[in-house]
Amino acid sequence: MVTETVTLEGHIIDSLILPKVLDTILQMGGAFDLSKIHVGATRKESSHAEIRVHAETTHLLEEILQAIQAHGAVVAGAVDCALEPAPKDGVLPDSFYATSHLPTQVRVNGQWLDVEAIEMDLAIRVVRDPLHARTVPMAEVKAGDMIVTGRQGVRVFPLERPKERDVFAFMEAHVSSERPHRHVIADVAHRMRMIRDNRQKALNEGEAACDPELGTKVLIVGGPAIVHAGGREALSWLIDSGFIHVLFCGNALPAHDMEASIFGTSLGYGLCAGHAVPHGHEHHLRTINRVRAAGGIKQAVESGLIKDGIMASCIRKNIDMVLAGSIRDDGPLPDVITDTLQAQAAMRAALPGVGLAIMVATTLHAIATGNCLPAKVPTVCVDINPAVPTKLSDRGSFQAVGLVMDSSSFLRELAQELSWHG
Amino acid sequence: MVTETVTLEGHIIDSLILPKVLDTILQMGGAFDLSKIHVGATRKESSHAEIRVHAETTHLLEEILQAIQAHGAVVAGAVDCALEPAPKDGVLPDSFYATSHLPTQVRVNGQWLDVEAIEMDLAIRVVRDPLHARTVPMAEVKAGDMIVTGRQGVRVFPLERPKERDVFAFMEAHVSSERPHRHVIADVAHRMRMIRDNRQKALNEGEAACDPELGTKVLIVGGPAIVHAGGREALSWLIDSGFIHVLFCGNALPAHDMEASIFGTSLGYGLCAGHAVPHGHEHHLRTINRVRAAGGIKQAVESGLIKDGIMASCIRKNIDMVLAGSIRDDGPLPDVITDTLQAQAAMRAALPGVGLAIMVATTLHAIATGNCLPAKVPTVCVDINPAVPTKLSDRGSFQAVGLVMDSSSFLRELAQELSWHG
Amino acid sequence: MVTETVTLEGHIIDSLILPKVLDTILQMGGAFDLSKIHVGATRKESSHAEIRVHAETTHLLEEILQAIQAHGAVVAGAVDCALEPAPKDGVLPDSFYATSHLPTQVRVNGQWLDVEAIEMDLAIRVVRDPLHARTVPMAEVKAGDMIVTGRQGVRVFPLERPKERDVFAFMEAHVSSERPHRHVIADVAHRMRMIRDNRQKALNEGEAACDPELGTKVLIVGGPAIVHAGGREALSWLIDSGFIHVLFCGNALPAHDMEASIFGTSLGYGLCAGHAVPHGHEHHLRTINRVRAAGGIKQAVESGLIKDGIMASCIRKNIDMVLAGSIRDDGPLPDVITDTLQAQAAMRAALPGVGLAIMVATTLHAIATGNCLPAKVPTVCVDINPAVPTKLSDRGSFQAVGLVMDSSSFLRELAQELSWHG
Amino acid sequence: MVTETVTLEGHIIDSLILPKVLDTILQMGGAFDLSKIHVGATRKESSHAEIRVHAETTHLLEEILQAIQAHGAVVAGAVDCALEPAPKDGVLPDSFYATSHLPTQVRVNGQWLDVEAIEMDLAIRVVRDPLHARTVPMAEVKAGDMIVTGRQGVRVFPLERPKERDVFAFMEAHVSSERPHRHVIADVAHRMRMIRDNRQKALNEGEAACDPELGTKVLIVGGPAIVHAGGREALSWLIDSGFIHVLFCGNALPAHDMEASIFGTSLGYGLCAGHAVPHGHEHHLRTINRVRAAGGIKQAVESGLIKDGIMASCIRKNIDMVLAGSIRDDGPLPDVITDTLQAQAAMRAALPGVGLAIMVATTLHAIATGNCLPAKVPTVCVDINPAVPTKLSDRGSFQAVGLVMDSSSFLRELAQELSWHG
Repeated sequence: MVTETVTLEGHIIDSLILPKVLDTILQMGGAFDLSKIHVGATRKESSHAEIRVHAETTHLLEEILQAIQAHGAVVAGAVDCALEPAPKDGVLPDSFYATSHLPTQVRVNGQWLDVEAIEMDLAIRVVRDPLHARTVPMAEVKAGDMIVTGRQGVRVFPLERPKERDVFAFMEAHVSSERPHRHVIADVAHRMRMIRDNRQKALNEGEAACDPELGTKVLIVGGPAIVHAGGREALSWLIDSGFIHVLFCGNALPAHDMEASIFGTSLGYGLCAGHAVPHGHEHHLRTINRVRAAGGIKQAVESGLIKDGIMASCIRKNIDMVLAGSIRDDGPLPDVITDTLQAQAAMRAALPGVGLAIMVATTLHAIATGNCLPAKVPTVCVDINPAVPTKLSDRGSFQAVGLVMDSSSFLRELAQELSWHG
Repeated sequence: MVTETVTLEGHIIDSLILPKVLDTILQMGGAFDLSKIHVGATRKESSHAEIRVHAETTHLLEEILQAIQAHGAVVAGAVDCALEPAPKDGVLPDSFYATSHLPTQVRVNGQWLDVEAIEMDLAIRVVRDPLHARTVPMAEVKAGDMIVTGRQGVRVFPLERPKERDVFAFMEAHVSSERPHRHVIADVAHRMRMIRDNRQKALNEGEAACDPELGTKVLIVGGPAIVHAGGREALSWLIDSGFIHVLFCGNALPAHDMEASIFGTSLGYGLCAGHAVPHGHEHHLRTINRVRAAGGIKQAVESGLIKDGIMASCIRKNIDMVLAGSIRDDGPLPDVITDTLQAQAAMRAALPGVGLAIMVATTLHAIATGNCLPAKVPTVCVDINPAVPTKLSDRGSFQAVGLVMDSSSFLRELAQELSWHG
Repeated sequence: MVTETVTLEGHIIDSLILPKVLDTILQMGGAFDLSKIHVGATRKESSHAEIRVHAETTHLLEEILQAIQAHGAVVAGAVDCALEPAPKDGVLPDSFYATSHLPTQVRVNGQWLDVEAIEMDLAIRVVRDPLHARTVPMAEVKAGDMIVTGRQGVRVFPLERPKERDVFAFMEAHVSSERPHRHVIADVAHRMRMIRDNRQKALNEGEAACDPELGTKVLIVGGPAIVHAGGREALSWLIDSGFIHVLFCGNALPAHDMEASIFGTSLGYGLCAGHAVPHGHEHHLRTINRVRAAGGIKQAVESGLIKDGIMASCIRKNIDMVLAGSIRDDGPLPDVITDTLQAQAAMRAALPGVGLAIMVATTLHAIATGNCLPAKVPTVCVDINPAVPTKLSDRGSFQAVGLVMDSSSFLRELAQELSWHG
Repeated sequence: MVTETVTLEGHIIDSLILPKVLDTILQMGGAFDLSKIHVGATRKESSHAEIRVHAETTHLLEEILQAIQAHGAVVAGAVDCALEPAPKDGVLPDSFYATSHLPTQVRVNGQWLDVEAIEMDLAIRVVRDPLHARTVPMAEVKAGDMIVTGRQGVRVFPLERPKERDVFAFMEAHVSSERPHRHVIADVAHRMRMIRDNRQKALNEGEAACDPELGTKVLIVGGPAIVHAGGREALSWLIDSGFIHVLFCGNALPAHDMEASIFGTSLGYGLCAGHAVPHGHEHHLRTINRVRAAGGIKQAVESGLIKDGIMASCIRKNIDMVLAGSIRDDGPLPDVITDTLQAQAAMRAALPGVGLAIMVATTLHAIATGNCLPAKVPTVCVDINPAVPTKLSDRGSFQAVGLVMDSSSFLRELAQELSWHG
């Protein structure tokens, strides 16, 4: 029988970390003593547990320690993390440490470094001068980069509940079409107001004046059903009113939005007449072709070809847009990034400062964005199909909230909550 | 080779009946000549086709004639329908004619009689004095009742497109969450206004003054998600404002509606607080118990136990309610009809005069109601799950429209369209 | 500041009970000391915690104690449960204790009594001579029955993990169509073999010889899609081979099963030909009519009208069948219990001894059965629509497993696992 | 009142084209005479109709003619198609003709040319020397290319029913989980055998010996759920046995397939053990990294890193693989085409000769492939979510069949039908 002592620290009751760790030890065939336990008696106070883990063999002990390390268990008497050079461009050392989306530190020269730009399923690159650690995607690693390997000298931190007592603070925020959604929408709207104010403060009084935890940007990730279902005016208004700062989408959302501006249809379905227009299914192709002729969305708006709608608002408000291509695209629009690695990089570059992510009626882009978001960013995912919010909510943070409703009703109710009169 | 001539009459182009008939003949191995064809050159004019059907054997010819008879093909030189007595109570003659939900006539003594109370999957009973034909459910047939058997002497009529050029007139009214729903809701609201006016005319000037095609009642069939999701105020307002006249539901909708009145929750989820209330899942049980103690919903409202909501509005406006029980009910409320055959009979009794059926967030009750509705009643089915509207829309009439959206957003937008300011 | 001490006992780590209790205290605004904690260091050993709960007011303290009582927290120095007479037939005392589906005891005369026939959302009736406690449905209570009220003197027990290390022991048994289902099916099959053996032992050597925890009956709850989709032969074989002992269904499953025997179709769709048969949608009506003429399913099988299929197997093997009616039924078959309260009572009466519940392609009957099942009965719910298994799995026991797949593939693979060569 | 005569030719009854055309005329406010009608009296004989269309204004007449032209109505006395040069690279003339996926001809110099590589939503480029017409994607057009504009001189042909009387010949092949799928699978298997034989004949006796209508390749389009759900062995066997010739997929299917070869897991879920393996979610990342280190899938298989599974079979059988990237990819594998336009081009290049397309558990790739397929290629789309097959089946050809079932059960039953003993 071999033994090792580990410590757990933070909101380990709040986040159900402690029992998960104890259960994992038992499930894998080990045993434990809870040698010390101090549970914070209020919400703010953090907790601390010291656990002595026993196993039959050193191999099993090692396996158990690795498994519970993912939940933040730190082996007492920690050592530095191991570093190995990448063998060639685009290839990591075989035993590279794969990140989670939780706050993470690595120990280098006896010092714990925060891992920058944390995101799940990447590697960690340590750079010496100045000393820092940052995630790196597999495709971007260069031969010789020093990459963290194994699990020693790495620690992750369970999330704290957010300070605001809104929907994002409740684990009970299940995905269901049978829950009242008005309070969720009200809480989202409230957070959007706060972020707009915080952003204003940063612009007026400098970055230092704003609350970095709250963030200064609201990201919307949207699919074309927003336009098809009738949510275009509401989203345009939200952008015009300064509530949205970053837009991730594909080719179809802008194409159908601009189709609506030119032809008054969406996928050929008359937005005013309420029925299909003859040859209307060609309208988005003609729209894409005209925008290609104009040179791009910005030119199309500025030349007056596109007069209203989401794209017109984005261009006028100088929104940070990432249009990421996919293999089902028609055209595509000239602004679409057709290379998927470049598109991922553009999405990552737009994320710093995002304090709220709203995903509406898109599966591909919602999941791609979810992969890049740190766990701590409050996220609301709206879809008529419960499978999409469920996938996002499975990310395991307090702050992912799912809403099962149609995109148009969501955007209209959200805008009304923010005093739109549409 | 044997031959028989059949005629097709009515809106056989409009309704795709002609090609279905021709295709059926070919698919079953027959052949045909289109001996005469007159196609109405305007929407109003009806069409006429005479088809000579050829087949190898008399048996095959008979089978083909039977198959196309369901689409309204009438064998020239029609004979009376066959009638056989029911062998015992609750049992039909083995070869009884099973109805569709389309307008149907049977020929008795050389005279075509309209079949009253047409509904799918029932038998037709002919009564002599006075001579009339009416559908009869299998469980209600009495030994000796004269029942139509076989297919001769029976004819069904394809539906005409409704006169109103609204959503109910378009076969393209697909079920989709990617179509704008505002026009559908506007058309539903428009029809609700017309029916309310028509009803008022009937009340003020007598039945003869009203338009019987339009109907004088709006039926709502609803599930408990209406309350859970936050559509309670909107539905109460619609009832109070005289837009709803019949309600079909189960035990859960009224239970959670009255739970909201007593406890402010729905399935224990606080409708104002936006999160689960401790022990809230017991609230509907306590509600049901208190209403049982009061003696029923009417007594609970009149005694002041229930102050607001859907049930309070129904009682005050004297709405025709059918609460049909199911095996998953708690309690149930005293008003619930626990016998399913009695509940079906109560539903049938409430249908005459219904000019619009709105089904919201219920599968069991929507399908049970769909089974009882004539094809000509405009029907809108709203559900977050596309499977439910799809099932209803598969009924094969112009007038079934599906909407994929959450019940609360639907009811709120419908009420707003009818000038609610909630 | 007021304080009360509570104890938690059992598999409180395993079942995540301890942190839920601590979190509930904090969420409701209280505070606590973990005055003693002993965590079982192996799977078998149970754990024990003593928690001192603090709150600002006695009212808040009371609320917190009530909330955590549902998780098994017992106030030290427990008193007897409160009992009040039912005010009239079918009406409970206003503050009746509403049961969960977990093992429960009530304290009467200083003695803890097991509550018999535990099931969620019922009341508890205490009878004096001989002294025992048993659940009672609201509709069955009689005036003067002594009913447990409030929460004192009641304790519930968290479930232990089942001894078998099969799928039913893992909380990770999520509902997903993206998990391999072969192991789940293998574990279900294994349990079916064990129950068949156990049942055999009970029959041969007497009840005392069998393992009561394992159970002696397998319950199948099924919908008509089993027949439509092609799972009829596999299910018949399972019944014939002695693996199924109780069947809950509605009118449609037996109607379409017997339609297949008489006409070779299911809902008019040829099971051999693979396409719709002319007038085939009438076949189930004719089938029901013939079975009504015969007098019932047993008579139909014994007279040779029905030669093969699920019903034929059930009659031959003398399976305990409960056919519960619903308002969408055609006919119905003479064996259908049309009163929903009587149907619930019949279902309850068939449950003792059930050691495994398999729910296939039915929403209404699956949920109704789920309401009646104690938490400890292993349950597998199979549906093509993930919403149904999700609802069942939300029951909060280890033993509810969801499988998203079509009913025919499930039954065929299950039968093959049990060595069917179909 | 102005008038124009149009003709309709082909299987216009079979395909419901005639009534659609007549109905369109009426709906748009026109009128018509059916001046001549000859309906083919057998399946093989084609039909012919001459329709005189009347409208109030020449503008309305023009609109009606355009609308019905899409259904194959040809204005009598047809003229050549109009051609305009593309204004710049990647931009079409504003009024370019947008293709459907039906067989299409354009009239140039009085001669009708078949449009090659027909596919929906593209333009048609006419090249003079030698004279031919071929579809061209918007992004590939070059300045000066002669592009068909307007609708005159273009005709499309309704599909004939396929000669084989299998599932692909029936419009009734609805998407449903409540239909028996065995016959569909049997028909798919039968067609796979025929194509394998045809391919063999082409290889042995030369292209001229084979039946070009039947095709010589089977395309599978697959998602990672094939591996997750347990369909890997069956698909490998189908490839090894020569039934599959082209594979379209993304990054995830090959990644998880090779993860299964190296680690025995899929997305970290043990394919043998039936539960999640500690740190298993990292396995696919490590797999991708090792394949990147090896240089690609071919090298990974040939070096022995990957020993079994779908990729191993594909490499050994020299299957034509197109791995198209998306923004949610990890890694990706070196074989993934990350540019979406290049990926579309690679997919198009692999389509000629495809006689059957099988889409399994993928939305993005299924829809992208559906966009590129001519209407006449029989297509079966299998998904647990009915929305995906519905989308594909909406393509409006006889030959698109949807199956709602899980991917593993489908592939296993398909392989068993082709005599796999797995």
